[in-house]
Amino acid sequence: MTTSEVRAGLGRKVAADLVAELVSELGGEQFVIIDPDLIENYRYDWARDPAAGRPLAVVRPEDAAGVATAMRWAHRHRIAVVPRGAGSGLSGGSSAVEGGIVLSLDRLRAIEIDVDCRVAIVEPGALNAEVKAAAREHGLWYPPDPSSFEICSIGGNIATNAGGLCCVKYGVTSDYVLGLDVVLADGTPISLGGKRLKDVAGLSLLKLFVGSEGTLGVVTRAVLRLIPAQQPPSTLVAFFDTVAQAAEAVVAITRTTRPAMLELMDSASINAVEDVRSMGLDRTAGALLLAQSDVGGSGASAEIAQVRAVCDSVGAREVFTTDDPVEGELFAAARRAAFPAIERRGALMLEDVGVAVPLLPRLLEGITEIAERNGVEIPTVAHAGDGNTHPIVVYDVNDPDSRRRANSAFAEIMRLAISLDGTITGEHGVGRLKKDHLPDQLGPEVMAISRAIKNALDPSGILNPGAVL
Amino acid sequence: MTTSEVRAGLGRKVAADLVAELVSELGGEQFVIIDPDLIENYRYDWARDPAAGRPLAVVRPEDAAGVATAMRWAHRHRIAVVPRGAGSGLSGGSSAVEGGIVLSLDRLRAIEIDVDCRVAIVEPGALNAEVKAAAREHGLWYPPDPSSFEICSIGGNIATNAGGLCCVKYGVTSDYVLGLDVVLADGTPISLGGKRLKDVAGLSLLKLFVGSEGTLGVVTRAVLRLIPAQQPPSTLVAFFDTVAQAAEAVVAITRTTRPAMLELMDSASINAVEDVRSMGLDRTAGALLLAQSDVGGSGASAEIAQVRAVCDSVGAREVFTTDDPVEGELFAAARRAAFPAIERRGALMLEDVGVAVPLLPRLLEGITEIAERNGVEIPTVAHAGDGNTHPIVVYDVNDPDSRRRANSAFAEIMRLAISLDGTITGEHGVGRLKKDHLPDQLGPEVMAISRAIKNALDPSGILNPGAVL
Repeated sequence: MTTSEVRAGLGRKVAADLVAELVSELGGEQFVIIDPDLIENYRYDWARDPAAGRPLAVVRPEDAAGVATAMRWAHRHRIAVVPRGAGSGLSGGSSAVEGGIVLSLDRLRAIEIDVDCRVAIVEPGALNAEVKAAAREHGLWYPPDPSSFEICSIGGNIATNAGGLCCVKYGVTSDYVLGLDVVLADGTPISLGGKRLKDVAGLSLLKLFVGSEGTLGVVTRAVLRLIPAQQPPSTLVAFFDTVAQAAEAVVAITRTTRPAMLELMDSASINAVEDVRSMGLDRTAGALLLAQSDVGGSGASAEIAQVRAVCDSVGAREVFTTDDPVEGELFAAARRAAFPAIERRGALMLEDVGVAVPLLPRLLEGITEIAERNGVEIPTVAHAGDGNTHPIVVYDVNDPDSRRRANSAFAEIMRLAISLDGTITGEHGVGRLKKDHLPDQLGPEVMAISRAIKNALDPSGILNPGAVL
Repeated sequence: MTTSEVRAGLGRKVAADLVAELVSELGGEQFVIIDPDLIENYRYDWARDPAAGRPLAVVRPEDAAGVATAMRWAHRHRIAVVPRGAGSGLSGGSSAVEGGIVLSLDRLRAIEIDVDCRVAIVEPGALNAEVKAAAREHGLWYPPDPSSFEICSIGGNIATNAGGLCCVKYGVTSDYVLGLDVVLADGTPISLGGKRLKDVAGLSLLKLFVGSEGTLGVVTRAVLRLIPAQQPPSTLVAFFDTVAQAAEAVVAITRTTRPAMLELMDSASINAVEDVRSMGLDRTAGALLLAQSDVGGSGASAEIAQVRAVCDSVGAREVFTTDDPVEGELFAAARRAAFPAIERRGALMLEDVGVAVPLLPRLLEGITEIAERNGVEIPTVAHAGDGNTHPIVVYDVNDPDSRRRANSAFAEIMRLAISLDGTITGEHGVGRLKKDHLPDQLGPEVMAISRAIKNALDPSGILNPGAVL
């Protein structure tokens, strides 16, 4: 045997002993996956980061005590832990780390609705859609609605401070988190906030953990604020000659009204949808806006009429409105059809850059220019009311040069957003894919205090190493 | 001269040298107050904490560069800094520290409205009311509305994460802070967030600084989110036999509607108001609810009709409603009259405890019991829709025994709130008055990580020492 073979053998022996200790402390083999074939299912999230490592094991506790046990073990042995919800993340925040463990929360799925307190008490593995459904049974609503709401977990939503379509009016995940149970890096369980709606006692740790992408602790339970069920919406679709015109309409609309949805599709995404199925969209339009109002009763119709007046005054080519929620859903279907339609064109790199709303035209013009220069297609959809865009870089997965050009465009889009005083990520998180670009946005001083806080809470650096910071 | 006289003399000499150095670095005496009589105006906030110290000087920079200069000087000499806005804080968060400096932000008052981005760019000394007025000129609205909005500063609002009456629907200060410029403990200026509405790049430092009560940094500029102007409200006043009945109504109301205001006055506060001026309130009622809807048009009237139906079904004695904003303002005047009316009865200690909404009856019953046992009056008004209450302990400032009993009642109310899984402060902050009670609410583990974060950002502990932690 060569020296390196001996080392590898010893490494395997040590690893096996460590895992055996973990199994024993967790109280059973059913909580730990060591079969390499099964582990493969937990190595990647939707970013499919080719750099994902091979973990020692996947730990699947069934309660917070199990999470704490796993963290104490990891802390004692200085083993990297990648917390994982449903694995639908888009930035590689749940890519496995070589020699670490994946801590999957997919067995912690309890949902309890406290109707009188108007809160949901939820374990992190529960899906967003399941929380919405449980609330709906009581006439209540959990607003945050990432496009992936049917398959993404609440734990992942909290980790990334997920947004969505209705957050233009209703805010993001952070606005709905009233309480969190968190297991810290050394296995200590803490509880922050609770069912009370207002609380300023002490530092805002609750808000710090939201959006920390598993780098500061592992959420084992959340108290989520619910509000009364949404009223049936009125809906508008408007077509514009140019993205600049549509953006001008967005600025004017949000000055006087508060739509519950205000989405934009650019020419490339309109055509991608029409290529798949004719939905009667105007292929020659530069952009489409989709707006909904949910203020209830005749108010929704009146608000949509206001939105229509703005679109007309800006010079929209064509505007359709409806107070019929079913017809409105058909309008919204075009927006929902964008991702699947674009996916047919090749492999995708999904961007998530954002700018102040009036800068949308400059961002979108810049993206068009980046697409042309790199020879890739980049259709774009946007949560326009928030200035948050999803340019979708399409490439040929079997063509290394196409991939290289896509990577280059992906990075250029982030640099463009930063140059417009925008952000590299509005709702998906930094994860591992965007980590190298974070210092360009935040600057060295903010990076330094971010690291100081990370070190204060996770001095051994075992929580999701390589993500974010 | 005795040894201690020599020491005191040397101390004065050293202090004078230090202040001279500060004056020189700031570039002029106009930025530093050393006259003890003038300093007196900056020693206390509204908590009038008798333990407030005598500061070396009050520093009044006129820009962020001056703030950074003062912080670099303080950091170099390890001198305590108490940041101060308008001094209207209620928890002693701006009480001066013996031998430190007060860093007053009252000269940084610029307000700029970016209409297209729907944001206000505001310096910390600007008053909340000034920001509202500047936004109103453009048909825009800055919602957070602490009762003191006419005299409190935006910097103080950010420091305490201030709430108010409309936050039951529109959220608290933190929900409107998109960007902050902050000077750190060592004088380093940083910039967080900006005009973009959605941003999850990196840790949520922005949210951490909001509500940190001057213990982590000094805010020199904020980007605040604005929304379209509020619609004219419809208003309801309902009288109930008991607080329990009123709370039952609050739970039922918030299950189906989203009032823009949902306030409660208990029997003692109703009578305190009527004692001063007859407003036609029912003195025999156990509680009064005040609700407003602002959804616009006929929707507001419909929503208030829904609220009325709930109040009737719960068994309200009497319910008045109006769609006339002027008449509605008369209804609201009773609520606004509560503080001045109660102030006539003696000196006040203003509590700020909160619980989950359904626990309001238990909290208010407990407060009545505490009042009786301690022989003090405690009228209570509440932001009932948020479960946030302001029990107002009335005492005789010239009677030490009355003050002692009031202090005892004040502490007991906090313990009661904690026992109900509530908070010792919903919107005023911990400051120095409630600091001793914070560990009882948060527990040792959360205190430990709070201190770890404080130490990471302010290792010398010069920022607002003695407050919060």
